[in-house]
Amino acid sequence: MKPYAQMSREELMAEKAALEAQFAEIKAKKLKLDMSRGKPSHDQIVLSDAMMDVLHSNSYFNDETGTDCRNYGVLRGIPEAKRLMGAMSEVDENDMIIFGNSSLNIMFDTVSRSYTHGVCGETPWCRLDKVKFLCPVPGYDRHFRITEYFGIEMINIPMTETGPDMDLVEKYVESDPAVKGIWCVPKYSNPQGYSYSDETVRRFAHLKPAAPDFRIYWDNAYSIHHLYDDPDRQDVILEILSECREAGNPDIVFKFISTSKVTFPGSGLAALTASKKNLDDAAKHMLVQTIGHDKMNQLRHVRFFGNMANMHEHMRRHAAILRPKFEMLYDIFETSLGALEIGSWTKPKGGYFISFDALDGCAKAIVAKCAEAGVKLTPAGATFPYGKDPRDRNIRIAPSYPELDELEKAAQVFVLAVRLVSAEKFLG
Amino acid sequence: MKPYAQMSREELMAEKAALEAQFAEIKAKKLKLDMSRGKPSHDQIVLSDAMMDVLHSNSYFNDETGTDCRNYGVLRGIPEAKRLMGAMSEVDENDMIIFGNSSLNIMFDTVSRSYTHGVCGETPWCRLDKVKFLCPVPGYDRHFRITEYFGIEMINIPMTETGPDMDLVEKYVESDPAVKGIWCVPKYSNPQGYSYSDETVRRFAHLKPAAPDFRIYWDNAYSIHHLYDDPDRQDVILEILSECREAGNPDIVFKFISTSKVTFPGSGLAALTASKKNLDDAAKHMLVQTIGHDKMNQLRHVRFFGNMANMHEHMRRHAAILRPKFEMLYDIFETSLGALEIGSWTKPKGGYFISFDALDGCAKAIVAKCAEAGVKLTPAGATFPYGKDPRDRNIRIAPSYPELDELEKAAQVFVLAVRLVSAEKFLG
Repeated sequence: MKPYAQMSREELMAEKAALEAQFAEIKAKKLKLDMSRGKPSHDQIVLSDAMMDVLHSNSYFNDETGTDCRNYGVLRGIPEAKRLMGAMSEVDENDMIIFGNSSLNIMFDTVSRSYTHGVCGETPWCRLDKVKFLCPVPGYDRHFRITEYFGIEMINIPMTETGPDMDLVEKYVESDPAVKGIWCVPKYSNPQGYSYSDETVRRFAHLKPAAPDFRIYWDNAYSIHHLYDDPDRQDVILEILSECREAGNPDIVFKFISTSKVTFPGSGLAALTASKKNLDDAAKHMLVQTIGHDKMNQLRHVRFFGNMANMHEHMRRHAAILRPKFEMLYDIFETSLGALEIGSWTKPKGGYFISFDALDGCAKAIVAKCAEAGVKLTPAGATFPYGKDPRDRNIRIAPSYPELDELEKAAQVFVLAVRLVSAEKFLG
Repeated sequence: MKPYAQMSREELMAEKAALEAQFAEIKAKKLKLDMSRGKPSHDQIVLSDAMMDVLHSNSYFNDETGTDCRNYGVLRGIPEAKRLMGAMSEVDENDMIIFGNSSLNIMFDTVSRSYTHGVCGETPWCRLDKVKFLCPVPGYDRHFRITEYFGIEMINIPMTETGPDMDLVEKYVESDPAVKGIWCVPKYSNPQGYSYSDETVRRFAHLKPAAPDFRIYWDNAYSIHHLYDDPDRQDVILEILSECREAGNPDIVFKFISTSKVTFPGSGLAALTASKKNLDDAAKHMLVQTIGHDKMNQLRHVRFFGNMANMHEHMRRHAAILRPKFEMLYDIFETSLGALEIGSWTKPKGGYFISFDALDGCAKAIVAKCAEAGVKLTPAGATFPYGKDPRDRNIRIAPSYPELDELEKAAQVFVLAVRLVSAEKFLG
């Protein structure tokens, strides 16, 4: 095979005809496959089944200070859970508050609180004419949906292999007081799987925001979600809170983590890491919102893992399931598309996604074509604010959920769709 | 003993001296007792320990439709949990959404959502000059704190044995479009333990609000929390959503329930009951806020109870523990204060509280006096918006948490404090 751009019209016509025949064949199989969301597979989920055994009717239900976890109380989380989640977040237990089951919910509430009551005493955003967020693109659709929901103007910032374009970030953050935040997935970014370089993290920590209530929304969703035993140096990122402290900027970051992709999605723990000032501000709000989060689930997690080393060990079991899926996709993409120059893709060594860039103007058509053959992908455009990919080329691939044999079928449909849509593009 | 008002100055001086001696004696015991919050006792908590056994590593984790509760998904709650909680709320499973562990959190989010995005498409409250809530008083401090937090003006509505003063409620709701809500605890009200009469419920259902986004915030916190096997007729209240539907007013109520005082406080289920229009409006918000709540805990509750009859049976076990505490307080109050005409108290047959009205201007002093002797009460004034009891007379008594012998000591301190402060008042 040679690049489509070098094929004659006749060659392309022949290619297209062959692809259409293959597509008809695959379509007839009436597949029903899903590569749309970063959902753990059945094999991953069962890894945590034993967590259901750690608490039983004869358990000791007190935390280490003697507080009965069955009853009301303890707003910020039991100490041992803060310590475990602190270790996961690479911070001291006092730098964190444990919330409910969802870090997305913490992010939503953080934005909502800023909107209704302001950040640490600053003007509530609902009283401002304009609030803006920087959005590294492609990025995580659920982040963008939160800011869109609150009427916040989103500004696209191009992502690179070392993180967002920091020249642009500095320019916006340091000159425009309407810029109140930036969404970041600093490690194994969603969807590219890029990890921020030391320089990127340090430039974040040294930002001099024009707005006193500017915050970095640091969603460390894949902090311990490596595919290989020894992460590459580039995937070991600096801890942002301590970098901010060293830079004399302790208050500019909110860091979010959760065990949604460690234990059970929807029944895990989520936590906020931040400076004392920020945590106290969040706690003031929490005090009105709730009497406390689920301490029994905190206890369950602590007793299941015991320590951070065991959590890492647990993650290696996830990796053993996920790694072959990612590697298979890299192989299929390389074999089927490598020579054609009609798409490029990332090859992350952790996280949950692969970012695929098709030829300009082809993403929507490829996703539609896949749907036609029963393969569900994240909607094209979803990785951009307002669902608008200006070049209509980015597709997020989520390999985790299907079993290996199903994933292979789905990937074959995908590469076929990419080739077909690309051939059509060249044919005009 | 005779009423203090009929005592001579000498008699009162003697009484005061005797009480002071008793108080000094009791103070020397350095008690540390808590009658401040509606917190279940240890004996109540252990009633649900077996709930920790229902899920284990070999359990079947799918809900009745086959959805794996360990993984992401199912925004509104699994069907069998909606059915169980629907039975608890006396509505159809489709009339409800299950949230996280706290009905307070649902109420907060409901007010927050109204503030940021408006109710069912109406103007967000943050864009209005004035938003008002009606607050039956005395009432629940955490309700008032939510509305205060959002800068909502609170208007006191006197409570009666049959519910809030409905003439006043109708007057405000039907004439003032700034009135957007009313806080209600319709059954075994906090703190009086009153239950709304059929007439009250029907007048609520038939309200013709001036504001299209007015809602009744119906916190049915004690819906199945009876102290006696057969609740009095007056404590069997009409179901509000169906009354509203019958009145052609399906959208004017949000009803909140939780199992916080059924299973484990902090690790229970909470749910919102409302019309389809209201639930869809809430779900639009949820869809941005979270991927879903803890389905494993939903499954755990469903499997623990099986059905509503078992939940009622479980509540009878709670009642067996709570009843002697309430009855002991009624006895002590009657014996020690009955003849003195220096206070009146409610005698609820369910719920978690007793409302005590001291002589005007005495509540703060009584609470302070109790604190001096190591007995913690809910702060005086807490049962009123802004913490301001205009007559400084109401004290909320929470008998649930202390063991019976400790509660007796606490009650003895309390009645002593009431007598002492009242005697001082008469002496001027």
